[in-house]
Amino acid sequence: MRVRLTVAYDGAGFSGFAAQPGVRTVGGTLADVLGRVLRQPVTLTVAGRTDAGVHAWGQVVSFDVDPSALPGGEVDLAATQRSVNGALAPTVVVRDARVADPAFDARRSALARRYRYSVLNRETPDPFLRGTTWHVPAPLDLDILRLACDPLIGERDFSSFCRVPRRATSPVSMVRRVIDARWVDLGDGLLRFDVEASSFCHQMVRALTGTMVAMGAGRKKPGEMATVMRARSRAAAPDLAPAHGLCLWEVVYP
Amino acid sequence: MRVRLTVAYDGAGFSGFAAQPGVRTVGGTLADVLGRVLRQPVTLTVAGRTDAGVHAWGQVVSFDVDPSALPGGEVDLAATQRSVNGALAPTVVVRDARVADPAFDARRSALARRYRYSVLNRETPDPFLRGTTWHVPAPLDLDILRLACDPLIGERDFSSFCRVPRRATSPVSMVRRVIDARWVDLGDGLLRFDVEASSFCHQMVRALTGTMVAMGAGRKKPGEMATVMRARSRAAAPDLAPAHGLCLWEVVYP
Repeated sequence: MRVRLTVAYDGAGFSGFAAQPGVRTVGGTLADVLGRVLRQPVTLTVAGRTDAGVHAWGQVVSFDVDPSALPGGEVDLAATQRSVNGALAPTVVVRDARVADPAFDARRSALARRYRYSVLNRETPDPFLRGTTWHVPAPLDLDILRLACDPLIGERDFSSFCRVPRRATSPVSMVRRVIDARWVDLGDGLLRFDVEASSFCHQMVRALTGTMVAMGAGRKKPGEMATVMRARSRAAAPDLAPAHGLCLWEVVYP
Repeated sequence: MRVRLTVAYDGAGFSGFAAQPGVRTVGGTLADVLGRVLRQPVTLTVAGRTDAGVHAWGQVVSFDVDPSALPGGEVDLAATQRSVNGALAPTVVVRDARVADPAFDARRSALARRYRYSVLNRETPDPFLRGTTWHVPAPLDLDILRLACDPLIGERDFSSFCRVPRRATSPVSMVRRVIDARWVDLGDGLLRFDVEASSFCHQMVRALTGTMVAMGAGRKKPGEMATVMRARSRAAAPDLAPAHGLCLWEVVYP
């Protein structure tokens, strides 16, 4: 029986999603608790492997469970959700739990991922946004931020914005299809970069945001985005926005 | 020279506002930093003495500063604000700093205080609201919450909701004038109790919220608010909403 969970988490206390021995990760913690609740080892497939400190509102995971290992031979997903939330909330919260088609795979079935990057652009910070928003005191030019989104749309090579995976032995393609990229002005200095792509490579949203913010603050020329993209070198975009402003908002499935 | 500051803070790491020897308080921390920046001891007068764990968005403090103690004999309030925020933000943030009339007193000049109490009323909690919102999974009847506000309006005796100050040697009046009290439905299960009064006594908003939530959840009869008020005994309203849902929103001056 295949299960699909929608999970929200505050990434602050975690070394990212992917389970790693000896460190506290969202995936490792979640798999441990699921295994205890379902009385069997659980292996998670995840839609988006968020980095250390990155948040999620609509992360999706899938896994298989053998009902015969449970008393009565049945999986009660509502009870499973309550038990997991009882153990992990409010830091990690299972927002939805349902039976999925046996062919469903949280990673491979996903059509697109939506990320949100939040910036507080005013002189004084806000104690209640400090965990989820990058405070940028220098005034940002919203028109420049918006213009910088144009070269991102479509199937592009994002090598300038992506870190090559450490264990990569052969060349890795950094071509990604960006479906939508826009800055939203929420008022009171709160700005949000919403970006949707078929998939993202490592550090892509944070490097894009860091580069755009450098342009919006006048530290990089407007229109330089196309030049940075053409460079196809990670060194061309050294401005990396901090992890705590980023949130995996939603995963799109057929 | 009298100075007036508007201050926001996350109350989580503090034992309330009022300075106390040996514990970390907002007022103690703020006075220390102001004293260092202004090169003289600073004594704060505060509009609302928030309890341990209670937040503030628009707390107001006033204090006197002797410009002659400073280089050039002048107080640069913009620079003072930046220095204080450099030391304390983002946990404590000075949102505004201005010269006040010598007769201004943050406490005595205040006409009213506005508090907000936030409740997340849905089954699953939210990792991003956990520091500022009380999670109440049991469904609340908004009509009952709203009806319970009616007996609060006007000049009333709030003895049932207020803790007598520890050091009180003579009887203390718990009569307060409530100007406005209402529940706002913000959608997605987010409810907010907005209350304005000339002043509040100790634990008043948390006890009112706790009692109303008990009614809204069906644990106390609707309409019992008037009975609880008439009892004039702290024992009549034992439900105390947690501190982290409460925020001193605004202080009203002439």
